[in-house]
Amino acid sequence: MAAASGMEWLKSVKGVILDMCGVLYDSGEGGGQAIPGSIEAVKRLMDSGLTVRFCTNETQSTREQFVQKLRVMGFDISVSHVFSPAPALVRILRERRLRPHLLVHDGLMAEFEGVDTSSPNCVVIGDAAEKFSYQNLNEAFRVLIGQEKPLLFSLGRGRYYKETDGLKLDVGVFMTALEYAGDVQAEVVGKPAADFFGTVLKDMSLQPHEVVMIGDDLVNDVGGAQSCGMKGIQVRTGKYRPSDEQHASVRADAYMDDLAAAAHAILTSSPTTER
Amino acid sequence: MAAASGMEWLKSVKGVILDMCGVLYDSGEGGGQAIPGSIEAVKRLMDSGLTVRFCTNETQSTREQFVQKLRVMGFDISVSHVFSPAPALVRILRERRLRPHLLVHDGLMAEFEGVDTSSPNCVVIGDAAEKFSYQNLNEAFRVLIGQEKPLLFSLGRGRYYKETDGLKLDVGVFMTALEYAGDVQAEVVGKPAADFFGTVLKDMSLQPHEVVMIGDDLVNDVGGAQSCGMKGIQVRTGKYRPSDEQHASVRADAYMDDLAAAAHAILTSSPTTER
Repeated sequence: MAAASGMEWLKSVKGVILDMCGVLYDSGEGGGQAIPGSIEAVKRLMDSGLTVRFCTNETQSTREQFVQKLRVMGFDISVSHVFSPAPALVRILRERRLRPHLLVHDGLMAEFEGVDTSSPNCVVIGDAAEKFSYQNLNEAFRVLIGQEKPLLFSLGRGRYYKETDGLKLDVGVFMTALEYAGDVQAEVVGKPAADFFGTVLKDMSLQPHEVVMIGDDLVNDVGGAQSCGMKGIQVRTGKYRPSDEQHASVRADAYMDDLAAAAHAILTSSPTTER
Repeated sequence: MAAASGMEWLKSVKGVILDMCGVLYDSGEGGGQAIPGSIEAVKRLMDSGLTVRFCTNETQSTREQFVQKLRVMGFDISVSHVFSPAPALVRILRERRLRPHLLVHDGLMAEFEGVDTSSPNCVVIGDAAEKFSYQNLNEAFRVLIGQEKPLLFSLGRGRYYKETDGLKLDVGVFMTALEYAGDVQAEVVGKPAADFFGTVLKDMSLQPHEVVMIGDDLVNDVGGAQSCGMKGIQVRTGKYRPSDEQHASVRADAYMDDLAAAAHAILTSSPTTER
């Protein structure tokens, strides 16, 4: 199939970065469920000769546990191809010799093994979900305000995500809350930070214009990738809402019904792949 | 005593608006405790012939219960002289025929008696304290995002307040969180909203330049009053922090050690009062 009018850029795609939650699967009770057609779509993309990486702001479990959950759903994914914020943050903490107060999900704690958390001099928040209690937020705030120069790291800046039982507030909401309380601007590790996408591109050995990001989050996936020079496709699954297509500042290079449709469009356009 | 250099404005003061928490008392277990000298200072101001009103963003109890708590501490205050956000908001809800989803402290619920909360079409948040759980925030968010045009009311926009056991996050923090989550700008009822100060000034029958606001919150008390043309004194009690005196955008007309010192300065300068 030839690329549709205005979609000629699909022909130069050599690599694909896939968001996970809302693109591959919907999260929820029992770990969630695969979005129809996505398991096969991932397989087709990986078999095609394209360079495929996975990029998630998931911070409710370690990367290993997270990939294991996707394997159980039927996805054949290697841990080394998955990029998530916690390992990137641990590198930063070590480099800058920082001692974090951690407000993160219990499932993520193992990523911080060996990190000194005594007498904390910065605050780290992830998608802590139920742990975002008034008491825990007060505690994080007191660490912040007790510093001469408060330092707040946020594992992503998402507004909300979709679980099988409804929309849930994401880490960016509590980042914004603590920013306001502590009069501080958070350093974001994860999408849409350019540094984070840069690490993935480096691992792919590709130039930004050769890569397309596929996500359900218009601002963090599509907008973040576009800011780095990549193309961005928004899929109409996960947290997608029709109003996204009239967003004031971010316009996707394409909107597709789901990952299966996006993979089909890429694979039938790119000269390096199946036709 | 003559007014100090640069403080000649004290001579034209005919009315005083007092913030309550952090100026009259420190809140905390058992209702809190009076700040030394403040009971006598309130009495002196009221006996002097100045018009005195109280203006609080307190939303953990009804106005009646709140005044009763202060009476137990030793303050002689009339309910009709106390202005708080909830009654002002109830008027707005009635005028605009809105049905709120309430995320407020249990102690405040009685203020909303008779207000229709079925099929909510807006969200109201107050200082809900422990009720700011992840689950309750998700619920408020879902009401917001379910509206074609989300509408969020916040009873104040304070960052934090001081209780006897430490600093606590105030409603403004959760307002900011829901603003970000729902991509909406809250309508603030209470300090520092000009409408709210305007209601108090009208009740005092005074012009703004004749009135001084005394508070521990530089931005919401002092800055808010100054925006309305009043003078503003910050007291070094409650949530005051030394860095407030180097704030980037708000500069108080005077900084005083406590309410007793502020009352003394006003009463020894104003020609209409005791010397």
